[in-house]
This record gives sequence, structure tokens and C-alpha cells, in this order.
Amino acid sequence: MKRIVLGLEYDGAPWQGWQTQPHGQTVQDRLQSALAQFAQTPIALHCAGRTDTGVHAIEQVVHFDTEVERDCASWVRGVNSFLPPSIALRWASEVALPAHNDDASEQEFHARFAARGRTYHYLLVNRPVRSPLLVGKAGWAFRPLAIEPMRSAAACLIGSHDFSAFRSAQCQAKTPVKTMYDIQIRQQGELLIFTLHASAFLHHMVRNIVGSLVQIGSGKMPADWLQEVLLGRDRAAAAPTFMPDGLYLAKIDYDPKWQLPQQDGASLAWLFP
Amino acid sequence: MKRIVLGLEYDGAPWQGWQTQPHGQTVQDRLQSALAQFAQTPIALHCAGRTDTGVHAIEQVVHFDTEVERDCASWVRGVNSFLPPSIALRWASEVALPAHNDDASEQEFHARFAARGRTYHYLLVNRPVRSPLLVGKAGWAFRPLAIEPMRSAAACLIGSHDFSAFRSAQCQAKTPVKTMYDIQIRQQGELLIFTLHASAFLHHMVRNIVGSLVQIGSGKMPADWLQEVLLGRDRAAAAPTFMPDGLYLAKIDYDPKWQLPQQDGASLAWLFP
Repeated sequence: MKRIVLGLEYDGAPWQGWQTQPHGQTVQDRLQSALAQFAQTPIALHCAGRTDTGVHAIEQVVHFDTEVERDCASWVRGVNSFLPPSIALRWASEVALPAHNDDASEQEFHARFAARGRTYHYLLVNRPVRSPLLVGKAGWAFRPLAIEPMRSAAACLIGSHDFSAFRSAQCQAKTPVKTMYDIQIRQQGELLIFTLHASAFLHHMVRNIVGSLVQIGSGKMPADWLQEVLLGRDRAAAAPTFMPDGLYLAKIDYDPKWQLPQQDGASLAWLFP
Repeated sequence: MKRIVLGLEYDGAPWQGWQTQPHGQTVQDRLQSALAQFAQTPIALHCAGRTDTGVHAIEQVVHFDTEVERDCASWVRGVNSFLPPSIALRWASEVALPAHNDDASEQEFHARFAARGRTYHYLLVNRPVRSPLLVGKAGWAFRPLAIEPMRSAAACLIGSHDFSAFRSAQCQAKTPVKTMYDIQIRQQGELLIFTLHASAFLHHMVRNIVGSLVQIGSGKMPADWLQEVLLGRDRAAAAPTFMPDGLYLAKIDYDPKWQLPQQDGASLAWLFP
């Protein structure tokens, strides 16, 4: 038995999110079907971060166990030939399985449980007219946004907090307490790039935080309102969930001992230099 | 009578190019229809650069004459509400019409005849696997490309030349002699950005030049082969036409006296910083 880890990129627009559904219109269903075609046997996947409908991945990480013997380059080339244009494997890597099952949790790689952090980018076009070239690839705010109040507001989110105020009703996480390592807000021409790095994210958390920051950037709310919202832990107090179009799962952090050939969002260095 | 100039952005993927066709599936047909809906009268457009099927525009420039009285902001807002997501006006501007028709060519603005130069970008993903996030937005070369041989080869194209070697059989230009002002080749992560600035371009000229440069970058042809091709003026000697997906009409040069609110590709500063 081997454990294979995959890095994959996808355009979320045509898909009903990552996680398998009875209707089958998800990235997981489509990828499992391509893997089964290539390997000639069913393959079940575990992913690092379940993305929602319309949400993209620069580098999602997934793993599976198999008896099939193929080198990593063959997995990438072979499976990609069974995938549609909106999904592609970027790399494959084999990780060692522990010799004994007893102390497995410490010794074995798991795409989700071994992940130490996640980075998401949110792209926002900030100009009076919408952008045809970024349809499905960026959110849009037509009112001019002031960066400094958003940056100053975002600072209160750094650290370990109960993020219930930014959590959707459908969230299945065991605890609303997560650790935010960093929030960067950059401006490049008419584009704003929000980069959030945390231990993990609750359902809709990035889109709810970005929605609230936009309220502050547009002057509708003062910068110190964000801390009130955070401390209130009441979802109804925050801004509406921002559209999924601009959201990208960019990077999963793992212990370097797994030696994964991660690309660090490099294919989109043009987007996030 | 007023002459109105428009700057527009479009995703070329869903359209059969700029120029009007009997089937109506072109950017010109769709924009003329939106203008007619807004103005309640037919409007005929002239453009600066006719783009092909699948080719994008960061800032195409077009003009039309009308008796309809609207301020420029109304043209933008109103017409955009009749356009699909893949097309949007970025700005509108009124230019003076000459008092007399006799010396018109010198004194009047014309999107095509007043244009002094055009800039195109060609985006190319250079990595072993295709990019789902850039489907329809970039070309793809899976073999590693060496930048320096391509740069050194491109130098022979600068200046005034007969570009017949890079001209399609369908080209309607009066002369194959054009002036190339500049060719830049930049690398950003896994993306190559070719930027060509010329007095004007023949049909397929950018895509044929990029195709030939890729032959050189991949080592299939030596750098000095490009000059042979240019001097031979034989289309059959150059490389096949590269896919349209990565081609963007970025900027049209006009005399500053027209005071057009051009954006200089700014909406894609993230793509071309």
C-alpha cells in the first residue's frame, strides 16, 4: 500500500465546491472519477481544505492510498488526460506510511490533519466599472476603498480568537476558535489582494471578513467596528458574505519532513508577486 | 452631431472576433446592439484594432457619431447595463468635430486612422502542466523556454520591415511594411509576457511572431533563424500561428491633444506590473 499526495489547481466556477455530492458536480467527484479511470480501480480522496461553490484553488492538497504502482510523473500526466480544462494536477508525491498502526496520528501524513495552516487570497476589482477579463475570477467593489482603515481594522483579528461572528450557520467545525497568523492587504492598480493566513478557517470566514473590511474601506463603518463584531460573536452583526468569485485557496502548510514539491502559489506569481 | 470615443475591455473567448459578421456573434455586433438599445437609434462603430476570434482587449478604442445628447458617464453606465459580462465600456469621451469637412483627415479624430501605434501583450504559461485558472487567458508551452535567445532573436524585428513572413493569407492591410517600436519579453514565475509595440500589426502577426520565438526558446531553432524568416518574407517559413487565448490588445496610441481618458492597461496592472 502506498500513500500518494497530489497538488492540484482548479477554477471553481463550473463546480459545486470540493466535497462529493450525490449529483456529482464537484471537484472531488470529478477527480475521483479521473483517478479511477487512470488506475482502473476506485480511489477515495482526503483534502486539506474543502472549498465552496465558485471558489478556486491555486494549490489544493489531497491524498489517497492505493496498491497501484505508478511513478509520480505518470500519475500527473495520466490523470490530467482524464480531467477537464478547469482541473489539473500540478504534482504528485509519495509519503511513507507508518510501520505500525498504533501511533499513526503522529507518524502518518494526512492532507487535512497534518496541515498546520492555510493561506487564502481574495481578489477584488475596485473601480467604477466591472471587469470582463476577471469574470468569475475576482470580486468587485465599485466604491473607492481606503486601504489604511481596512489594514488598521484587520489587525484586531490577528491571534487566537473565537471567530463565530464570521462563521456560517452550515459550519461543521468542532470549535470556532482559530489562530490568524497574518492578514495582508495589497493594492496593485485597480486590484486589491487580501491575503489571510490562519491555522484553519471556518465556513465562509474569509468571505465574511472581506465583506466586513469592504464596509470599512468604503467608509460605511469605522475601523473599530470590526473588533466589536469579533467580540460580539454574532454572525448577524457582520457584513453579508462576499461573492466567491475572488477567493483562492493558495497554500497549505505542512512539516518540511514530508518533502512535498509545493509550488507556493507560483503559477500565480503574476497575480500575487 | 457629436463624436463619442469609447474605451472598452472584453474577454474574446465567447466571440468570433471584433468585426461585424452576418451571424452577429462578434463584439462589434453585440456592442452596436447595446448602443442602439440605450440610444434608441442605430449606431455604427469604427475601431482601432480588429481583434480575431478568442483575442481579448484590455483597452480597445472605438468611436461613433450621434445626435443623441447624453453625458459621458451616462453612456458608460447605460450601455454597460445592456452588455453581457464578457464586454464592458471603461470610459467615454467626446471629441470635437472639425467645422468644415474639407481638411477633415488632419483635424478629426478617427479611432483607426488617428492611431499612431498599438501595444499587444501575449501571455504564455511555461510549465509541464496546463493551468486551469488561465484557460482561455494564456497560451501554454510545456517545454522550458530560454528567455535570452528569444530576446536576442526579437531584436532583429525592431524598426521598419516588410513583415510578410508573419502575415496570414487573409490579411487585408494595404502594405506589409510596419514599424516595430519595441518587443519586451518578461518572466514572472511560470508566466512569460511578450509585449509588442508597433505602428500597426498585420493579420496574425503577433501570434506568428510569438510562435516563432517559442521555437527559438525551446531550442528547436537557433536565434538567428528569425532574421532569415523575416528577410525571406515567406509565411511558410515561420512557425504555425500560436493559439489566440493569450493575446490581449492593450493600448492604442493617440495624440495627447484628443485628451482621451485612457487607462494604459491599468486594470491589468496585476497581470503586467
